[in-house]
Amino acid sequence: MTTGDILLIERPINVRFRKDYKAVIILDQSKLPNHTEFIDLVTKEDMYQAILKLKVRGAPAIGICAAFCYAVYANLFFSEAFAEERLGKNPVCRELFLNELFTFKKYLASCRPTAVNLFWALERMEKALLAEVEELPKDCELTIDSASSIVNRLIGEACKIQYEDISMCKAISEYGLSLLKDGDGILTHCNAGPLATSHYGTALGPALLGHERGINIKVFADETRPLLQGARLTAYELHKAGVPVTLICDNMASIVMKNGWIQACMVGCDRIASNGDCANKIGSSGVAILAKHYNIPFYVMGPTSTIDFSCRSGDDIPIELRSGEEISEKYFSEPIAPSGINLYNPAFDIIDHELITAIITEKGIVRAPFDTGLLQ
Amino acid sequence: MTTGDILLIERPINVRFRKDYKAVIILDQSKLPNHTEFIDLVTKEDMYQAILKLKVRGAPAIGICAAFCYAVYANLFFSEAFAEERLGKNPVCRELFLNELFTFKKYLASCRPTAVNLFWALERMEKALLAEVEELPKDCELTIDSASSIVNRLIGEACKIQYEDISMCKAISEYGLSLLKDGDGILTHCNAGPLATSHYGTALGPALLGHERGINIKVFADETRPLLQGARLTAYELHKAGVPVTLICDNMASIVMKNGWIQACMVGCDRIASNGDCANKIGSSGVAILAKHYNIPFYVMGPTSTIDFSCRSGDDIPIELRSGEEISEKYFSEPIAPSGINLYNPAFDIIDHELITAIITEKGIVRAPFDTGLLQ
Repeated sequence: MTTGDILLIERPINVRFRKDYKAVIILDQSKLPNHTEFIDLVTKEDMYQAILKLKVRGAPAIGICAAFCYAVYANLFFSEAFAEERLGKNPVCRELFLNELFTFKKYLASCRPTAVNLFWALERMEKALLAEVEELPKDCELTIDSASSIVNRLIGEACKIQYEDISMCKAISEYGLSLLKDGDGILTHCNAGPLATSHYGTALGPALLGHERGINIKVFADETRPLLQGARLTAYELHKAGVPVTLICDNMASIVMKNGWIQACMVGCDRIASNGDCANKIGSSGVAILAKHYNIPFYVMGPTSTIDFSCRSGDDIPIELRSGEEISEKYFSEPIAPSGINLYNPAFDIIDHELITAIITEKGIVRAPFDTGLLQ
Repeated sequence: MTTGDILLIERPINVRFRKDYKAVIILDQSKLPNHTEFIDLVTKEDMYQAILKLKVRGAPAIGICAAFCYAVYANLFFSEAFAEERLGKNPVCRELFLNELFTFKKYLASCRPTAVNLFWALERMEKALLAEVEELPKDCELTIDSASSIVNRLIGEACKIQYEDISMCKAISEYGLSLLKDGDGILTHCNAGPLATSHYGTALGPALLGHERGINIKVFADETRPLLQGARLTAYELHKAGVPVTLICDNMASIVMKNGWIQACMVGCDRIASNGDCANKIGSSGVAILAKHYNIPFYVMGPTSTIDFSCRSGDDIPIELRSGEEISEKYFSEPIAPSGINLYNPAFDIIDHELITAIITEKGIVRAPFDTGLLQ
């Protein structure tokens, strides 16, 4: 993981392999900004819980983490199987292995329903697995050499997904920056920075890239209730990088726009339907409506892997409902509401494509009509 | 305070006199919903801090509290002055007393700049004071009898303000309820219920009154960051009263509107300019913009004492800026953002009159054009 180590010097890598490839190491984002803790994901339950509990979050980062988990899971399966089979002298049943991986994929994919990158990355890993298995001798049994080829292929594929994300983020950041000018203020919601992706991030990329080039972009970060990713992660990442950032509560987006401080809104996304409707962190649709009211451009930024052509519109995108306790208790020293109260906690909402000025992918800037634009 | 005691049976009275009229007793709203604590305000610093720190809040309640404080301050002044003058045998200089009250009024009025009810109530108390002083013998000195008349007049005026607020709230609630039908869902922001006013409240009045009459109004309460009045107070009051209430984060207002769950938005207000622009809790303008987008009526509710004809538009209303620590630290078990971050914490914003369907006062339902409607 040399490349990973190099990047680590610049910014902490949120997802990487342990050196023996028997664990995925992630930066536990749920503990930021007060505690910088890296944790090892070894069992499939570790992996599931890490994604469910938002220890790793951000659509691209979830995809990357799932891919890494997939490779580690395969590696651990073989390690254990061959250890049981007396130091690897005996082969392992191919169907048993494949079924194990099919089950694992389904299990991990059931963890969070909205971000398409999770399914996309797992699909891609399965495809790589099947391609590799296809190339092997047709025996029912896998030797230690075959297992090794499979694991290497999966590790390679996972790394490729991560490296591709780095260059996709760079391209998205460049396109995004081309829409801004020195001194502009942008408003962002939730966190679509390096922690949510790789390296520059998507929605935070233009500000980070601009900062490196001496172009001053001021960022207003919505704190993003209930899990405060804007406060805990966006403000943290930008502040650390030296980008001017002001933290506001979500309900202050209207006044900062009215004050004339915002020249563009930039957010990431979790899934893009073929008509351009975008699912993103709860509250994004509200920001888009405000931006339209104040005549401020609203940009959605994400890699093309976020596009799901099987969804015709936002109505086809499932919205994750999470525990109400995240609203009333998490992060607080005492509950903030009386017990027994009804709580509604959708994790995402749909930004209607009519509210979106442009969708920015690694391939370019797509404007309406999105249905044709996204196909290119 | 018999009347107060009667009301206390129904709902806790948020502002009342101690029996000796040497303290104002308030329910400390900053401690709700976890702790129901009543505190005595005795010194002028107690009074100032109680309003500044939102131990008493809500535009009408602030006005009522300021009036009560005014009467108590006058009473304490005389008590001390006559005690010093050997058990009240000697009179007190009239100019000295008036100057003391003028200074007190200025001091208390400087506490929070946006809610006009604070100034309105203090003005009214001063007017009552001057009227009473006018009726007394023209001597430079005040006897213990004169002092007693003055204090009684001020206590009476303060009580009158509170009692008037009760009937104003009732009238506002009736008008508000006339705009709803059984089964409607309303969205409210911050807290404009009994705690913020007297008895029914303003924006929560229709739901509370409807509940008493068997008309089912479901309330969605924005939690209202940073000080969480929606979670801590609105959800608490409605839940206690048996009104169906669902707590959401501020950024979920858009999705609940889109879901078709909201038939009207109802909020209180802190100051109404003569063109109908309304200052209310930060985030109110955002809710109004969303309501317009989803074609949902948006109602602002407050007594006519909230109208400030000296403000031509919202631009003339000062917006209180509060400490950033309220965003990043207050209520949390650990800071939610890295230290040293910029924080912007305006306590209010202005709802443009074009976004308002109607302003509801105790006199009726005012629709555009507001400039003429508010005069009636």
